[in-house]
Amino acid sequence: MQLRELAALLGVAYDGDGDCELSGVATLAKAGPQQLSFFANRRYRGQLAGSDAGAVVLAPADRALFAGAVLLSDNPYLTFARAAAALHPAPSLPSQRHPQASVHPDARLGADVRIEAGAVIEAGAQVGDRVVVGAGCYLGAGVSVGDDTRLSPRVTLLAGTRVGARCLIHPGAVLGADGFGLANDRGVWVKVPQLGRVVVGDDVEIGANTTIDRGALDDTVIGNGVKLDNLIQVAHGVRIGEHTAIAACVGISGSTVIGRHCVIGGGVGFVGHLEICDRVIVTGMSMVAQSITRPGVYSGIPAEDARRWRRNIGRFHQLDELARRLLRLERSNKDAVDE
Amino acid sequence: MQLRELAALLGVAYDGDGDCELSGVATLAKAGPQQLSFFANRRYRGQLAGSDAGAVVLAPADRALFAGAVLLSDNPYLTFARAAAALHPAPSLPSQRHPQASVHPDARLGADVRIEAGAVIEAGAQVGDRVVVGAGCYLGAGVSVGDDTRLSPRVTLLAGTRVGARCLIHPGAVLGADGFGLANDRGVWVKVPQLGRVVVGDDVEIGANTTIDRGALDDTVIGNGVKLDNLIQVAHGVRIGEHTAIAACVGISGSTVIGRHCVIGGGVGFVGHLEICDRVIVTGMSMVAQSITRPGVYSGIPAEDARRWRRNIGRFHQLDELARRLLRLERSNKDAVDE
Amino acid sequence: MQLRELAALLGVAYDGDGDCELSGVATLAKAGPQQLSFFANRRYRGQLAGSDAGAVVLAPADRALFAGAVLLSDNPYLTFARAAAALHPAPSLPSQRHPQASVHPDARLGADVRIEAGAVIEAGAQVGDRVVVGAGCYLGAGVSVGDDTRLSPRVTLLAGTRVGARCLIHPGAVLGADGFGLANDRGVWVKVPQLGRVVVGDDVEIGANTTIDRGALDDTVIGNGVKLDNLIQVAHGVRIGEHTAIAACVGISGSTVIGRHCVIGGGVGFVGHLEICDRVIVTGMSMVAQSITRPGVYSGIPAEDARRWRRNIGRFHQLDELARRLLRLERSNKDAVDE
Repeated sequence: MQLRELAALLGVAYDGDGDCELSGVATLAKAGPQQLSFFANRRYRGQLAGSDAGAVVLAPADRALFAGAVLLSDNPYLTFARAAAALHPAPSLPSQRHPQASVHPDARLGADVRIEAGAVIEAGAQVGDRVVVGAGCYLGAGVSVGDDTRLSPRVTLLAGTRVGARCLIHPGAVLGADGFGLANDRGVWVKVPQLGRVVVGDDVEIGANTTIDRGALDDTVIGNGVKLDNLIQVAHGVRIGEHTAIAACVGISGSTVIGRHCVIGGGVGFVGHLEICDRVIVTGMSMVAQSITRPGVYSGIPAEDARRWRRNIGRFHQLDELARRLLRLERSNKDAVDE
Repeated sequence: MQLRELAALLGVAYDGDGDCELSGVATLAKAGPQQLSFFANRRYRGQLAGSDAGAVVLAPADRALFAGAVLLSDNPYLTFARAAAALHPAPSLPSQRHPQASVHPDARLGADVRIEAGAVIEAGAQVGDRVVVGAGCYLGAGVSVGDDTRLSPRVTLLAGTRVGARCLIHPGAVLGADGFGLANDRGVWVKVPQLGRVVVGDDVEIGANTTIDRGALDDTVIGNGVKLDNLIQVAHGVRIGEHTAIAACVGISGSTVIGRHCVIGGGVGFVGHLEICDRVIVTGMSMVAQSITRPGVYSGIPAEDARRWRRNIGRFHQLDELARRLLRLERSNKDAVDE
Repeated sequence: MQLRELAALLGVAYDGDGDCELSGVATLAKAGPQQLSFFANRRYRGQLAGSDAGAVVLAPADRALFAGAVLLSDNPYLTFARAAAALHPAPSLPSQRHPQASVHPDARLGADVRIEAGAVIEAGAQVGDRVVVGAGCYLGAGVSVGDDTRLSPRVTLLAGTRVGARCLIHPGAVLGADGFGLANDRGVWVKVPQLGRVVVGDDVEIGANTTIDRGALDDTVIGNGVKLDNLIQVAHGVRIGEHTAIAACVGISGSTVIGRHCVIGGGVGFVGHLEICDRVIVTGMSMVAQSITRPGVYSGIPAEDARRWRRNIGRFHQLDELARRLLRLERSNKDAVDE
């Protein structure tokens, strides 16, 4: 694709040789004359100047930093993401119903679906148009999957789970296992039936080996546009608001509600029954132990305002020295008294 | 089911309209006239008063807080759990041996088992009566599974693993993978053969994508009535005592022994070779770095008595201010000396 | 096998009855007269003296601590690992191509491979000689697996993933899922295509339910001899150097580079874009937030030199008391001023 064509496709301006032929994308360090790269972090200014890339996406203010052809964008990383999708379209998977898949006669399949080897689809399941059900996936009774959703191999959707349109779910993800509901009878745990469902909106991505439990009574709900990374635990009755992104290894305890447009770093833990408002950022490995009612950045164990956390953790690294100084003061005071 | 019938079935008293017809359970906020709810947390007193539930399980002391019919119980959540199980019996799965399952001729299957599509059962495996082996499960050579145990789809039990009766194992759980045993030969890791098994008692529940490694020499042992949530790592040689409950994302290092009737919060980590006595509670995201010999509540990194932790972490949030006050004192002392 | 034979096989000296017949290995506490045990930790000196083991591997300096026959080694645990492998050879699995596996006609299989039931191998995949592809494994288009590698059941290798020779991958591991790459378009997340691969060297072990994402542009690379435990998250573009060992539940954020011969404890988290030099040890549940340029032991949240962390965390446990002492000093100073 020529640079001018790509610019037109993406609706952005270009500068330099519009005939430049681009066959793919690469990093500034590795891109060659037929590849597009991007510049979004000032740290890589040196790499930009020396890059052999055929073209680079950058902000208009940075135009002077690269001698070659450019795509101009106020959000270079976003434009690069779209350019990469245009230059590397996902291989289209032909529709198929593999003879080694097991599809219950009472399941309803849309048009042009692809059901790979070893997939199992139970009674009452509904699969939308152009859905891919990867090898070894399991769709329990009454599951529904919206149009154009793609299930990678070995995804498990247990009975009653609903997944919207245009979602992408990675291998090993488990939606709809029982929540961890237990009552105690003089020392012996008694299971509390888990009667809710998992309901996932449209345009959601769910990472490998992530688990989302069904609700105890009400549903567990994942809003439209939510992005979940790998190995995340979402407990029963959790609700995650639209367009929130959560990095790997996060654990969210039961009935906690996370707002819209939040960004949660890796390894964060949430206590149960909290309410987190919209536009909250929690930095990695924090423990959120209380509800959050104001947008902002939060850190720490337990989480507090990130600036306060940084000051306190800075002091923590001096703590032994502070304790020694305190002891010295106490001694000098005692000496003063003793004098 | 009528309220009076349900009360009789559960062995508790009722008050109000015994003819009240109940078809299911719901939260106080959502329950309608044919639904049962429960009241176990004073926070929800307002919801209780305004609830449209046909009946509510509550403690006798709270009888006056709800105008409608009630089930009376000293442990309302437990009674509710049993009522929910009575009103929403798990769908009975017909016994079956799916033609797309692969069962070795030397495996022994009990009566009325259900083997779903894609399940693989190797030589020498023994499956008890009324066991469900979900779609895509793997039972290695010599595995044994006790009566009435239910394996959800895609559970992996590697060679030699033993699971007791009436267990429930959720998708993606892996029992019997090799422990992480390595010797070092001048910088190169050499595998230590992992020769023990995983032995799981009766009435155990194991969450989605939880991993329990086989022992190096002795077995890894999960006691009767233990409940494990999702994404938990149980390393080789760990022993978990009866009726202990462990929340999601916990990691237990090799050879650590956890007592009976313990409750471990989400995200907790245990160092290896510890001994934790019975009736220990560890709050979420703590790191247990030493053996615990007294029942009680423990918190922190590393874990200590929870009350001390709370006091210390409270001070941590003032740490920058404390350091400034210390500096001020030092200065005033210095001034005093200089005077 | 006789003790003298075993000693010859392992290239170590023995002392005592060379005719002693050994059929297996066990712990000091459980070993009987036909079993070999080992002594590598002075804590178990009492068990050594009283052990019924037929022979024990120990260091020459400890010879006097055990009356029976011994194998002498400067690295008893390493010698024990090799003895255990000799006495308990892994059962050899016959080559096989199970009729319920699905192998694309364009896949290339080496000699003596074993393809178990339910495995799926896509077009263009290459499987080396003597490889085991366990039940329910998925090998996507263009995957390559080196000679003698063993995939346990239910391993997922997505399109383009390369695994070297003599590797062992445990159930539920997912290699090659998309990295978590997102650009933001006025609040809505836009997927950044993930175009790199996962490239795994030789002699690598990967634990159950561990996830290794494909690179965004460059590959995610796992070096020769690396050992990864269970439930580890390796994000896109991470590189792990040769012979590094990583315990369970670790999360490594995108583009972080970990050196060779490192040892990472359980539950550790790494921020993205870091460089960790060779021979770094990070203790369990630390958060590594900055690059590390000097070999050594690091601990804490965020990680610092382990000795400093121990001193500071020791003071943390006195923090409430320190704060009270500070207050007392302030009061006495104030009194002094007021006087």
